[in-house]
Amino acid sequence: MSNAILLIQCQDQKGIVAAVSDFLFYNQGNISGIDQYIDKDSESFFMRVEWELEGFRIPKHEINEGFIKTIGSKFDIEHKLYFTDPAPRMALFVSKLSHCLFDILGRHQAGELKVKIPFIISNHKDLEPIAEGFNIPFHYFEMNADNKEEQEAKQLELLKERKIDFVVLARYMQILSPNFINAYPNNIINIHHSFLPAFVGAKPYHAAHARGVKIIGATSHYVTAELDAGPIIEQDVARVRHHNSVDDLVQMGQDVEKVVLSKAIKYHIQRKVMVMGNKTIIFN
Amino acid sequence: MSNAILLIQCQDQKGIVAAVSDFLFYNQGNISGIDQYIDKDSESFFMRVEWELEGFRIPKHEINEGFIKTIGSKFDIEHKLYFTDPAPRMALFVSKLSHCLFDILGRHQAGELKVKIPFIISNHKDLEPIAEGFNIPFHYFEMNADNKEEQEAKQLELLKERKIDFVVLARYMQILSPNFINAYPNNIINIHHSFLPAFVGAKPYHAAHARGVKIIGATSHYVTAELDAGPIIEQDVARVRHHNSVDDLVQMGQDVEKVVLSKAIKYHIQRKVMVMGNKTIIFN
Amino acid sequence: MSNAILLIQCQDQKGIVAAVSDFLFYNQGNISGIDQYIDKDSESFFMRVEWELEGFRIPKHEINEGFIKTIGSKFDIEHKLYFTDPAPRMALFVSKLSHCLFDILGRHQAGELKVKIPFIISNHKDLEPIAEGFNIPFHYFEMNADNKEEQEAKQLELLKERKIDFVVLARYMQILSPNFINAYPNNIINIHHSFLPAFVGAKPYHAAHARGVKIIGATSHYVTAELDAGPIIEQDVARVRHHNSVDDLVQMGQDVEKVVLSKAIKYHIQRKVMVMGNKTIIFN
Amino acid sequence: MSNAILLIQCQDQKGIVAAVSDFLFYNQGNISGIDQYIDKDSESFFMRVEWELEGFRIPKHEINEGFIKTIGSKFDIEHKLYFTDPAPRMALFVSKLSHCLFDILGRHQAGELKVKIPFIISNHKDLEPIAEGFNIPFHYFEMNADNKEEQEAKQLELLKERKIDFVVLARYMQILSPNFINAYPNNIINIHHSFLPAFVGAKPYHAAHARGVKIIGATSHYVTAELDAGPIIEQDVARVRHHNSVDDLVQMGQDVEKVVLSKAIKYHIQRKVMVMGNKTIIFN
Repeated sequence: MSNAILLIQCQDQKGIVAAVSDFLFYNQGNISGIDQYIDKDSESFFMRVEWELEGFRIPKHEINEGFIKTIGSKFDIEHKLYFTDPAPRMALFVSKLSHCLFDILGRHQAGELKVKIPFIISNHKDLEPIAEGFNIPFHYFEMNADNKEEQEAKQLELLKERKIDFVVLARYMQILSPNFINAYPNNIINIHHSFLPAFVGAKPYHAAHARGVKIIGATSHYVTAELDAGPIIEQDVARVRHHNSVDDLVQMGQDVEKVVLSKAIKYHIQRKVMVMGNKTIIFN
Repeated sequence: MSNAILLIQCQDQKGIVAAVSDFLFYNQGNISGIDQYIDKDSESFFMRVEWELEGFRIPKHEINEGFIKTIGSKFDIEHKLYFTDPAPRMALFVSKLSHCLFDILGRHQAGELKVKIPFIISNHKDLEPIAEGFNIPFHYFEMNADNKEEQEAKQLELLKERKIDFVVLARYMQILSPNFINAYPNNIINIHHSFLPAFVGAKPYHAAHARGVKIIGATSHYVTAELDAGPIIEQDVARVRHHNSVDDLVQMGQDVEKVVLSKAIKYHIQRKVMVMGNKTIIFN
Repeated sequence: MSNAILLIQCQDQKGIVAAVSDFLFYNQGNISGIDQYIDKDSESFFMRVEWELEGFRIPKHEINEGFIKTIGSKFDIEHKLYFTDPAPRMALFVSKLSHCLFDILGRHQAGELKVKIPFIISNHKDLEPIAEGFNIPFHYFEMNADNKEEQEAKQLELLKERKIDFVVLARYMQILSPNFINAYPNNIINIHHSFLPAFVGAKPYHAAHARGVKIIGATSHYVTAELDAGPIIEQDVARVRHHNSVDDLVQMGQDVEKVVLSKAIKYHIQRKVMVMGNKTIIFN
Repeated sequence: MSNAILLIQCQDQKGIVAAVSDFLFYNQGNISGIDQYIDKDSESFFMRVEWELEGFRIPKHEINEGFIKTIGSKFDIEHKLYFTDPAPRMALFVSKLSHCLFDILGRHQAGELKVKIPFIISNHKDLEPIAEGFNIPFHYFEMNADNKEEQEAKQLELLKERKIDFVVLARYMQILSPNFINAYPNNIINIHHSFLPAFVGAKPYHAAHARGVKIIGATSHYVTAELDAGPIIEQDVARVRHHNSVDDLVQMGQDVEKVVLSKAIKYHIQRKVMVMGNKTIIFN
């Protein structure tokens, strides 16, 4: 049977852990994981608790209301309730580069990513054969300077219609409008091919090569209105040497991108990410 | 003011988190950190909770009894209670190599390690000047095949007399007897200069060089009766190349040893290590 | 145009670099890369030199003879001559796990691996659809205790017939016979899913989990008669935590396996690997 | 006996390797290491060759002239000639933080750094006791807005008088004037406590914490007129988590700083660094 996951955020105060664990214990919930973080600077409290639904005395669809009545009436908190079943629905946005797409679909096929992928969206047709190979619908949206607003509106309609929970930009080479971003706050995951905040923007491997760095990296983050400046979920690096060309950096970097992006997707799916201002808390 | 830390270990069961957090909340304890782990295989529950003593309604010296009465009467648990103040008392054992000793004393002097170091013990006199430079008493115990039992007995007496909480073997090149080890269960930290379980025993850098590995490592672990086989606390690695000599490996490895050992000491001091069979849980 | 690559191995002696570079200069060769290593212990000299064939005065098919006449008559050396064109021919052996196969074929399709893959051999039919998806012939060889010798003979015949240069065992779960191994000395690349020499043999992730290591790894090596003991080409690691299950280790490890194996293949293809006893020299 | 090291830089052209190796062979030089790199973009050739002076037919003090006559007359090259003996003379500049100073002096004492350290310069008196403990003269230069030019002039005089070859800024918190920098081009090594080009300037750990990065780093580079923008010699990183405070980052980062700076010093001493524009070639 599946689990429930509760994410809680509030001003730090005595008794919150006791109240939540009492609520679960009273209702016969078996806690399978509890994580907590107190941010001293802002005096904020963050908590993730996961418990088994089997044997829990409150029916699944009444848990949220029950929680609000019991805890929400006592503490001024923000909370989100998730269930591990059904799996969340993820839309994949791609352009021309195949490495992240291949990697995600391969992991998905191997059962590593507990997610549904109703479709792939792209502004180019290059990767359509890969989508077909994995039997996933592929929607082509031509994008140009004139039709962006219109095409994004259609994309959003499609996302809504197919009940998409979150979006992954797997090297999608279009900048999303604020309107699109606001429709999925902290639910659009991007992979940037540099060790942010170094080398924001286009062609970071060229910039890294020109600067002569000895280590390159990749960064997965939630998309916000400011380019490449959203909350960082995961980063990793690879060592390079003076004889490596830009092409070498691209190849070595793609290996990092794939691992970083898939880790960020996993943390997101498992509800292990909480956002605090422009930073993330990763309960892993 | 200082904090209290409670480490709890028991059969996994409903209500334990609620009971502990209720106990703390009821007594006005402000939880500053809570970590928990359930080992599915053995159905065991592990928990670390830290709270501020300021404002806590139970006096420091009655907390243990209070906890036993309240929680220990309901659940069959093992627990340990620690306080962040006063700092634990650590004995350093060394032989001839200075790098770990230098590193630990440098960190200690810079305030990075919250610990008291009443003395250093060695089976060689080589490092006495370093101890003197840091104003720490240095006790020389000559060790040979005949006097081991006798000398260890004297060492243990000294440890007891000076109320030593735990021992760090900072490249101490003597194998401790089971008798000595049993006097400090899970309280003797060793640094082994290989990526265990590869290259157990003497001269691991020579063995690594002979095998032609591309990565070397270091391992910090609690000492048990079986050589280099105790619970691993921390490991790290460094990349090597074909042209690196054994001497190069020694130098590169020493940098890893220092960082790995100091991390293990920190985790131990902060009571972030729990031992489960021959493995560690690190709440970091 | 393509390049020539010369690998040279001999007793260390004065004049060898001068002789080789004179030979190339005299014949108008433009050196694009030169690497050299002297092993002090064995007083052995290793060299890799790559030069452009364009403008080189000796025709491609006469270079080997020319080199032997000029240099081989003066020095007692072993040498191997390669050309970057045509690409070497690689046979892929797989069993049931798809991650390495997917990774290699994806990189090959993206132009990252300069190699021809005439076919895939497997002792199971599970991965045949992937081979078909990439339009690569798939040969199924059922293996059991009784038919091993016979089936290996057929495999070797196929390798010979299709002029295979080297073999990659991409998580092929069969132990090759010495007879097979001897047919491709230092030309069979295996990926072992541990940080060798730790956890030789079957189920290394289970062994790593049982030992409680904090870092896992993968090792690519040339296959020799002794299991998992051949010259190591490349290794890498990933950090794990106490809460990671064996399944987590498998998933995290597979990411390392893919990168390590593809790096080993690249070094091999680029003739950057020289074998010295049971160790490798990697000119990268 | 000691070795000679020749660093050569010129337009890429046929015959240069042959000419240099002939020169050495003709004069009975036994090459112990040769490294070479061709930068395709600028068509530049870089070479490092090291050979044993024992048995070399040209006397030490005539080698430079001999090389110019033989090779310099044929090719338009820049070259530098070094000897492994006597060791180069290094001046250490520090301010208040002790970790890099301790680390360098500890390595020096252990014989790891083949260098002479005639004195330490500081703009604060805090670290004088450490210098005394290692018996190294300590020169205090008070620095303020008004006396910078004057004090730097005195420092330069001291460097000249004591025949200093290169300068290491071991967390020296003063910006050097262009005049000072120009006196030691590519001979002033700085350690910056971030993964450059991210977080240039003051308080990079604070900036990294504010940005919420998951990895921090340190960078060693040659000092040029533009702040933190000189040729990068070495970089390394450490993983951080959301619960790490700025103080944690400082401590974790200092471990990286020490290793990165000592590696950069070693490469520099061993003449393994060549500068190409604003980048370095590291022959390691």
